[in-house]
Amino acid sequence: MRARPVIVAFPYASFRRSALSGIRSVFFISDGTGITAETLGHSLLAQFQECRFRLERLPFVDSQMRAQACVRQIRAAAMRDGVRPIVVSTIVDAAVVAALREADALFLDLFEQSIGPLEAELGVRASHSVGRSHGITESASYFARIEAINFTLAHDDGQSHERLNEADVILIGVSRSGKTPTSLYLALQFGIKAANYPLIPEDFERDCLPPELLRHRGKLFGLSISPLRLAQIRSERRPGSRYAQPDNCNFEVEAALQLMQREGVAVIDSTARSIEELAALILQAIQPAEQG
Amino acid sequence: MRARPVIVAFPYASFRRSALSGIRSVFFISDGTGITAETLGHSLLAQFQECRFRLERLPFVDSQMRAQACVRQIRAAAMRDGVRPIVVSTIVDAAVVAALREADALFLDLFEQSIGPLEAELGVRASHSVGRSHGITESASYFARIEAINFTLAHDDGQSHERLNEADVILIGVSRSGKTPTSLYLALQFGIKAANYPLIPEDFERDCLPPELLRHRGKLFGLSISPLRLAQIRSERRPGSRYAQPDNCNFEVEAALQLMQREGVAVIDSTARSIEELAALILQAIQPAEQG
Repeated sequence: MRARPVIVAFPYASFRRSALSGIRSVFFISDGTGITAETLGHSLLAQFQECRFRLERLPFVDSQMRAQACVRQIRAAAMRDGVRPIVVSTIVDAAVVAALREADALFLDLFEQSIGPLEAELGVRASHSVGRSHGITESASYFARIEAINFTLAHDDGQSHERLNEADVILIGVSRSGKTPTSLYLALQFGIKAANYPLIPEDFERDCLPPELLRHRGKLFGLSISPLRLAQIRSERRPGSRYAQPDNCNFEVEAALQLMQREGVAVIDSTARSIEELAALILQAIQPAEQG
Repeated sequence: MRARPVIVAFPYASFRRSALSGIRSVFFISDGTGITAETLGHSLLAQFQECRFRLERLPFVDSQMRAQACVRQIRAAAMRDGVRPIVVSTIVDAAVVAALREADALFLDLFEQSIGPLEAELGVRASHSVGRSHGITESASYFARIEAINFTLAHDDGQSHERLNEADVILIGVSRSGKTPTSLYLALQFGIKAANYPLIPEDFERDCLPPELLRHRGKLFGLSISPLRLAQIRSERRPGSRYAQPDNCNFEVEAALQLMQREGVAVIDSTARSIEELAALILQAIQPAEQG
């Protein structure tokens, strides 16, 4: 299990003197899960590669009492670090924000920074009520998301050819090219029904894509990967196996690319892309933005 | 498949005259996936329930040319709506931001709002380089995340009792209480190895938790759900079945709660909680924050 809090030293640090004197505590504080504050916070902190940060997410801070508990943690971190912490927050309730600001910290209030300009633009006051954002995801698209997850699980790794007409996308590629995590992310984050099928030695011998997939050619989407990276990944799973050997990985990747290109299947390279990036690229391809 | 762009009319609208005159286009623009901009944007827009928005995510805007294509889309939306659009962006590169700002829109620049105060606080200039944030997730924790996903898939729905000593958490609860999506989210988002096991009629007859789970009592975490909601969910899956009948759902939920309480297993109610909230609550419980 990952330990919390996490100390991050960004790679490629240029080791400037000023910032290396110590560790700065950063708190991601939210009245919800804190995932948004943490994600944007990570992007911001990644811009300061010479600094070392101690990261902590404090979710569900939805009362003044909880805010006061945060204040105690922030103060303790300031004492320990010898420098005031940074707080990245997305709290909606003004009273909770006020309680939090009793602490001495650099406050980056992602909500407050934007809500004023939005009110002015829309000519409407913000409701400042907590949790309505959750209502949206739960009510309208919740069942669709759960359905997408169930569908994706049932169609992971070629388990089933049934109901493929319901799929939004069918990912294909060699074993360990990233199909499963990408499919799951598409389902969880975007409510996309994503089946996935491995291209296996039988497909390369027969030298054509499985006919049951070709019936849904318009939904096919290929993942490729560098043979070197593939060999690394497979070696972690089955060290010393034929499956993991570089020449075999090279052959499979090439053969898969040829099969997919011959059938006009769009292919993206998963080698240096995160699950989120792969999912967003696929979504962009299968749901092309309307040209206004 | 969900259509894009999405038109959102928030529920419980109070139908103020001023804001109902039309639809306002909102663009979530990023040099990455745009998921952060979209998530925070949704929270912000949810504060204006009387307004109707037309939402569009424009990911991977990492060049001036792509920014210019966005500008054309923003202008077309302004023409169609008769009002200038809102842009929520997380773009790092100053030249790309400048190209984007050729359009007339309300710009909520989540990155720029915070980077100045951070530079002043840290006494260091931001690198303003794109994509370093991805490097972090890929290098250090990428393999751990993939491993967690593989583990979680292999231990979904009681499929395996092997390697449970490696699990970070073992979710238990009646069928359709939310164990599978929550486990997957824990793995995908947080790199947590989450096994899950359904509590089934045999467990209630025997009136004790499965012995192979009790061996890992400290990792058990229970999900409960309102019997009414459970009956709804099960009815969608198996209409008219004994499995979905309200009295059976009532019995299973009660019996599961008694089993879990007797063994001192922490339980949370999944009825009104999103997958993200359940995952964040479980993470908080199994990784208690260090008291500074």
